[in-house]
Amino acid sequence: MSPVHGVEILQDLFVIFLLAKLAGELMTRLGQPPVIGELLVGVAIGPHAFHLVDEGEVLRAIAELGVVFLLFEVGLENRFSDLRKVGGTAAGVAVSGVVVPFVAGFLLLSSLGRSGGESAFLGAAMVATSVGVTARVLADLGLLRERESRVILGAAVIDDVLGLLVLAVVAGAARGTLSPGHMAILVVEALFFLVFAATVGTRLMRRHGSMFGRIQVSEGPFVAGVVICLGFSALAGTIGLAAIVGAFLAGMVLAETREQFALEKRIEPITNFLTPFFFVLTGMAVDFRTFVEPSTALLGLVVFVLAAVTKFIPCALASARMGRRSATIVGAGMIPRGEVGIIVASIGLASGVFSPDVYSVVVAMSILTTLVVPPLLRPLFGDRVRPPTEAAEGGEPFGAATS
Amino acid sequence: MSPVHGVEILQDLFVIFLLAKLAGELMTRLGQPPVIGELLVGVAIGPHAFHLVDEGEVLRAIAELGVVFLLFEVGLENRFSDLRKVGGTAAGVAVSGVVVPFVAGFLLLSSLGRSGGESAFLGAAMVATSVGVTARVLADLGLLRERESRVILGAAVIDDVLGLLVLAVVAGAARGTLSPGHMAILVVEALFFLVFAATVGTRLMRRHGSMFGRIQVSEGPFVAGVVICLGFSALAGTIGLAAIVGAFLAGMVLAETREQFALEKRIEPITNFLTPFFFVLTGMAVDFRTFVEPSTALLGLVVFVLAAVTKFIPCALASARMGRRSATIVGAGMIPRGEVGIIVASIGLASGVFSPDVYSVVVAMSILTTLVVPPLLRPLFGDRVRPPTEAAEGGEPFGAATS
Repeated sequence: MSPVHGVEILQDLFVIFLLAKLAGELMTRLGQPPVIGELLVGVAIGPHAFHLVDEGEVLRAIAELGVVFLLFEVGLENRFSDLRKVGGTAAGVAVSGVVVPFVAGFLLLSSLGRSGGESAFLGAAMVATSVGVTARVLADLGLLRERESRVILGAAVIDDVLGLLVLAVVAGAARGTLSPGHMAILVVEALFFLVFAATVGTRLMRRHGSMFGRIQVSEGPFVAGVVICLGFSALAGTIGLAAIVGAFLAGMVLAETREQFALEKRIEPITNFLTPFFFVLTGMAVDFRTFVEPSTALLGLVVFVLAAVTKFIPCALASARMGRRSATIVGAGMIPRGEVGIIVASIGLASGVFSPDVYSVVVAMSILTTLVVPPLLRPLFGDRVRPPTEAAEGGEPFGAATS
Repeated sequence: MSPVHGVEILQDLFVIFLLAKLAGELMTRLGQPPVIGELLVGVAIGPHAFHLVDEGEVLRAIAELGVVFLLFEVGLENRFSDLRKVGGTAAGVAVSGVVVPFVAGFLLLSSLGRSGGESAFLGAAMVATSVGVTARVLADLGLLRERESRVILGAAVIDDVLGLLVLAVVAGAARGTLSPGHMAILVVEALFFLVFAATVGTRLMRRHGSMFGRIQVSEGPFVAGVVICLGFSALAGTIGLAAIVGAFLAGMVLAETREQFALEKRIEPITNFLTPFFFVLTGMAVDFRTFVEPSTALLGLVVFVLAAVTKFIPCALASARMGRRSATIVGAGMIPRGEVGIIVASIGLASGVFSPDVYSVVVAMSILTTLVVPPLLRPLFGDRVRPPTEAAEGGEPFGAATS
């Protein structure tokens, strides 16, 4: 614990946190999600630009913890019991919006002669909707109770679970060989983990969740929540899945308890503190100069258009019976990839599957699909938009909570 | 961000957090502060015993963050304006309880032929009262509003500030030469930092603290608080003081704002999550086998008795006009060193000033002075002890909050 060393880390943490939050504030005032600001700060202070901060082991670990707690918090907002309540339209929207982008991403890179692993990872990065952006826009416009909003938010629950399953398998496969046998084991592991959490975990929480109240050390439910989050994450990592899959399932299990709301309120500060380090470090790995290369720029454009179209068309078709206008809203609302695409990209880079150019392309795709949605939704709702009187308190703080 | 590496850290974090909280729960049920349990877990899983976990760069950084946030939270409970309100008796108790133990600790090691730095560090470790233990006992017995309690809690505020000043100078000196010139610079720096925070910082917060409400990114006051905490800590470290001195002053500055209470509630989860890693890592460095050596065991006993007596007698004398019984209560209430002594010990070890035997002696002294007080206080108050009806909700959660 050399003091001088500790000081350097505190200096880095201070600079990163300050700049990330300033950029987040700027983005919020521009009507954009703060995560975009955090990413751009990362690009600016990273080794490919001003090189103010070096990514060391400590910063990487703090960033990893940040994304673990972020997914834990997202899980806390998703209940297994809600999965059953989601209507048929929402389920159709979710499933088609997962299958089509995955296949499209996989086929695109495969046809360019890239490896099966890299192709599958691009598919996985194109799967997961970050509905947080859409939810925030809907909340700001006072539209959260509209029919289209409920379909979008319902689909997001299934989308999250399916997206995490795809990621679990793809990320697990990236660590070993990509043999069919290995893939099959990972699918079974991920499904077993999911089913175990959904049945045994959920039942335990419902029956014995009240035991949290008997813990005498301060903040018993919070402590139990953190233990379960860290335990599930470590377990997921140990059996070869991504740690965030465990964190997400831990959150879903705890979402069934009576303490869910109080727990979420106590986890939020940790997420709010740690998560910016994840997005800044993610930005630091992006080298925008790769887009000077025409082939990379073209690939970026193609991936962005493909990501938007393969989400929009299947989701709009799946909700076609709601009418043309409503289906358009649902399709557009499912486009943003936001932080979820970026999380997949960072795992792809860390496990050596993504080449730097594809990594930068995926991050750019996530940013662009996120930026494009807010200006689309407002005119689509037309005169149903309500003056933002209750929006100020109605909107969930976006910085931390996403799904 | 190699996934396998990330998994190892998650496994370590899980094991440490789980065991720390289980031990804390056990201690709470035994009527002892949880921090004792966390320390003993550290001793057990550390390299000198079962060696379950290795202390790496990442764990050290997380522990350091934990103690920074702990001191930030302690600072949030101490206001500069309260310093002026503390009565003459409390001020006398605080000052005499700081000067006498420091001199005694310094003279003891000096007379044994140890270096001036190590002697000064032992003095500093014997200075700081951890009044959290006493406050918890008083709260549990329903005695927080008694005259003696108010003197103890008032003295604790001044004690904290003086203790941090002593630590600032001693720790700063340990990094460089121990020349009188260097010491003088550190005293001036620490005093300047303190006065600056107390005047400019406090005035800024009182006049412009409301600007926190204008921050639009989610949880503006929380974000501003974390920025100021990290900034002051990094600044303190950069100018050669201990980072926790900056964190404590940052807390005191923010204690003046209207948002103080809300901010404390949001910082608590971070402290509650990170601080156990500090105490477990502190325990990991303790080698209880050093006490097999008779000279170390004797030194431990002498330091413990000296620590208890040099706090008890001066504090009791300074409050003698309250009557014999009350003065005994005040003297006993100021004995615990708890986490504060341990923080000083860890800085002493990290900066290479403490030899391993003195480090173990200081940690043992902190544990023993803490264990000894709860059984003393109850009989001293006699029939003034009230049934613990309101105690259940009256007591601050002890695990995180201390002062």
